[in-house]
Amino acid sequence: MADTAAIQTFTEENPQFTLYSHDTGPNGFKVAELLSELGLTYKTVFLDFGNGPNGMKTPFFENLNPNGRIPAIVDHANGDFVLWESIAIILYILKKYDTEYKFWAKSIEDQALIEQWMLYQATGQGPYLGQAMWFTHYHPEKVQSAMTRYTDETRRVLGIVEKQLSREGSNGWIVLGRITAADISFLHWWCLAFRIGIEIETEFPVVHAWMEKLKAREGVAKGMTGAQFPKGEVEIKGLN
Amino acid sequence: MADTAAIQTFTEENPQFTLYSHDTGPNGFKVAELLSELGLTYKTVFLDFGNGPNGMKTPFFENLNPNGRIPAIVDHANGDFVLWESIAIILYILKKYDTEYKFWAKSIEDQALIEQWMLYQATGQGPYLGQAMWFTHYHPEKVQSAMTRYTDETRRVLGIVEKQLSREGSNGWIVLGRITAADISFLHWWCLAFRIGIEIETEFPVVHAWMEKLKAREGVAKGMTGAQFPKGEVEIKGLN
Repeated sequence: MADTAAIQTFTEENPQFTLYSHDTGPNGFKVAELLSELGLTYKTVFLDFGNGPNGMKTPFFENLNPNGRIPAIVDHANGDFVLWESIAIILYILKKYDTEYKFWAKSIEDQALIEQWMLYQATGQGPYLGQAMWFTHYHPEKVQSAMTRYTDETRRVLGIVEKQLSREGSNGWIVLGRITAADISFLHWWCLAFRIGIEIETEFPVVHAWMEKLKAREGVAKGMTGAQFPKGEVEIKGLN
Repeated sequence: MADTAAIQTFTEENPQFTLYSHDTGPNGFKVAELLSELGLTYKTVFLDFGNGPNGMKTPFFENLNPNGRIPAIVDHANGDFVLWESIAIILYILKKYDTEYKFWAKSIEDQALIEQWMLYQATGQGPYLGQAMWFTHYHPEKVQSAMTRYTDETRRVLGIVEKQLSREGSNGWIVLGRITAADISFLHWWCLAFRIGIEIETEFPVVHAWMEKLKAREGVAKGMTGAQFPKGEVEIKGLN
């Protein structure tokens, strides 16, 4: 359980967390959106790809995350506890600081259902949309069959989320009939679907309405501060 | 907390769980290996890809898992509770049934570190090795640059795990200096690395030694029952 006394010493000027992120990458914003929704304070450090002065492949950052990718957090209210992998970070924040279960749940079963959808985000949505983006914008040669593969897979996952949001009892949320961290986890990647030619508004109207509802929230909107949504290719030399 | 009285009525003949799996897919075996290690009983149902009579894309199975992929479990000790996504299943089993923390941990921080590595397995190891396998064995055209991309990424992840297992205080385990569910989660996918031309024994000797140590465990070995390790292409029509 969090040390409440310690948390209260943190302010916007002296924030509780440092969040290492990237201004075009969705995974850091997932974390920022949850932190903002919970009213937790954080300073975002936007890193660059590669091993340049502000890069993810520098000894400084690889000391925090040996995988050399964002996001990573440092929790200054908890002995500078370091964690990486966005969904692991989200689970830590929920368990430690969402003590009213606003985006989390009390029972093991309800937690498991939230985790199931968060894992589907991390293993279904993220990798497929990410690889579709790679083959559309960055791969050294044009491989139509690979672009098609990953764009089709992204549409398949969108279809499953569309159906899930439409089912009886959903109340327009992914799981438990209310907003949870699963909704926040899925949002930011879908904001980038236009970059692989998917127009969510016309193709998946239920997902679109759910996105608009989420983006209208004060916390989510604040968490998106600094997000870039480039239309074309951006510099990602040294991504891997 | 589990109802101990109810659990004790389950036997090998009348097992507690039904586990939907596939005989060449690693994600079902991750779950089987943990269940066996914990002495929990389960019946494995090996499904086929596609929408044939025993397929993952049938109304029966999509009713359990709308994503139409293995694994999924049904916990008959908990009102036939259904769950899918292998890491979500593992977290549920840990929280509900690993009450001695054999593969799990008590503190939020230690849980977070286990989850961090399990998420890295699910988002780093699985997708890269899986896509390397796809482009090596199944993609409709030969795309050398895609095969190279995913094989290189898999080697990069292997290198990070090799380093993690070699660090001071690891005791030869991934995290917390002891065996955890993170070790079990990583094992089975590495058993398939030979299928994309990676020879772990010579290239990553520390990972190899750790694999041998895990495979020698009675529970892990039992969990691998029925696993196929095909050298070439196998029928995966209708995978997606």
